[in-house]
Amino acid sequence: MKYIYGVDLGGTTVKMGLFDQEGNMLEKWEIVTRKENNGELILPDIAKAIADKNEEKSIDKSDIIGIGMGVPGPITEDGRVLKCANLGWGIFSVADELRKLTGVEKIKVGNDANVAALGEQWRGGGRGFDSIVMVTLGTGVGGGIILNGKILTGSNGAAGEIGHLLVNPHEKRTCGCGKKGCLEQYSSATGITRMSKEKLEQTDTPSELRQYDHPITGLELFKAYKNNDALAKEIVDTFSSYLGKGLSHVAAVVDPQAFVIGGGVSKNGQIVLDVVQEKYEQDVMFALKGKEFRLAELGNDAGMYGAVRMVLS
Amino acid sequence: MKYIYGVDLGGTTVKMGLFDQEGNMLEKWEIVTRKENNGELILPDIAKAIADKNEEKSIDKSDIIGIGMGVPGPITEDGRVLKCANLGWGIFSVADELRKLTGVEKIKVGNDANVAALGEQWRGGGRGFDSIVMVTLGTGVGGGIILNGKILTGSNGAAGEIGHLLVNPHEKRTCGCGKKGCLEQYSSATGITRMSKEKLEQTDTPSELRQYDHPITGLELFKAYKNNDALAKEIVDTFSSYLGKGLSHVAAVVDPQAFVIGGGVSKNGQIVLDVVQEKYEQDVMFALKGKEFRLAELGNDAGMYGAVRMVLS
Repeated sequence: MKYIYGVDLGGTTVKMGLFDQEGNMLEKWEIVTRKENNGELILPDIAKAIADKNEEKSIDKSDIIGIGMGVPGPITEDGRVLKCANLGWGIFSVADELRKLTGVEKIKVGNDANVAALGEQWRGGGRGFDSIVMVTLGTGVGGGIILNGKILTGSNGAAGEIGHLLVNPHEKRTCGCGKKGCLEQYSSATGITRMSKEKLEQTDTPSELRQYDHPITGLELFKAYKNNDALAKEIVDTFSSYLGKGLSHVAAVVDPQAFVIGGGVSKNGQIVLDVVQEKYEQDVMFALKGKEFRLAELGNDAGMYGAVRMVLS
Repeated sequence: MKYIYGVDLGGTTVKMGLFDQEGNMLEKWEIVTRKENNGELILPDIAKAIADKNEEKSIDKSDIIGIGMGVPGPITEDGRVLKCANLGWGIFSVADELRKLTGVEKIKVGNDANVAALGEQWRGGGRGFDSIVMVTLGTGVGGGIILNGKILTGSNGAAGEIGHLLVNPHEKRTCGCGKKGCLEQYSSATGITRMSKEKLEQTDTPSELRQYDHPITGLELFKAYKNNDALAKEIVDTFSSYLGKGLSHVAAVVDPQAFVIGGGVSKNGQIVLDVVQEKYEQDVMFALKGKEFRLAELGNDAGMYGAVRMVLS
């Protein structure tokens, strides 16, 4: 039997998965991401976790096909990280370093959002499609683009940065990226909370959202929306209008077969696809109408699956 | 010596080029595009033109490496046209048909805008870059995207349709595509003429543009702009704002190395790049700043060069 390690490196924990040569997950576990000293312990920790697992399972190094890893920052196609403030990393070849530390020849490294998109295309909500755009609606809006089964990296590793599409030129609030009117300011969990707070404060419209004494979540918003709550409808309309517009831009550029929507906000299910798809169809030219919209299926495992896929393809 | 034919099929004429195996153009000529009977004469005419040239030059069929062709409609990666209203064509494999008619095995077919982009990347303004976005500012706004030296086709051949990016949600006029607020409504030769007419009619601002008794062209607009004409500045500002915004969307999706600007409006030269680049830099997130902006160089020959490049790669 041959093995592949799929690693999803995050700012808090490293998700580690052991897979067989068919891409089936055999087991998964986590280690802490130790960020001290500019993140110099991170790769040695990952190498040690792999070595320990090899010993535990009596896996010979010659039976390891390769190691794939997603990293939270821009990565070039040959595995160089261009900067990863989140981990304290500067510019270096993550692939070369992990190769030295593990003695495994085949190392594939990608941006974490892109790698998760590849996982969803291979084994998740994008199954059956070669070309998808994955959109992650979490704290921010992340994106990953898969064309003909391969990650679209971009010349500086910044392809698929759809959370920072400028969708509202009239916005006065500043986005985390320093610009104003980014998609992420409306169509993320943070955007939902912020828009809800403002609507509740600035209007007298009766709403079931007024019962909560904490910041409104996507779950509460979509629950109210399903109950025909007028205020919730306005907020969902803003959320979905900007997201539909953003996806219409993406479609006009890469013409994918399907959109796969993931992240915390997508846990509200089909209703999220429905509201976004309706706005998308309004905004997009005829040649791009009728795309498939799917929910992501792999949750936090998507990155590990995508990492393995990079090794296998 | 080995030869390649590069063909650029347009709605009025077919541009034909004979190239050597290094991709140097040996000669070029044109034939008429006969569109009667649903365009059934077009491919036989092209095949005959090639046969005649072979005879004239005593080129043996075994010395032809292949034939590349750009077609004005959506084309899949395997050379099927999905519809080409302009030529009267329905859905069929252009590549298979031309293979039968010419007896040449290697036939490559692509969308004309995409093929022209490939030509510019290979031998024109995009030389030295692997990944470019070509923007053609003519009657409409066309686009072609080259990633790692290959055309980005899209799942329905509609990738790079950047003329129909929705850039102005407040627009009331309808675009040729049926939507409102498309980039093409502002940043094309047609857009310049229309915006100029409206500004001249709706304001009393003194302007050198008032001297002309015909629709204003890009040439006249940019001439006035260079003379600090206030009205021209307003129009150029609208033209470049929407184009800069559109290109910022494209960059966030595919992260190219460079933009190459062609078409009639680009004949005004460096000033066009300057005004667009300024707006682009305002709109785009930090990771995407600093892209190169270049003028297209091959003019009407770009499609033939790109067609040859498809055969050689």
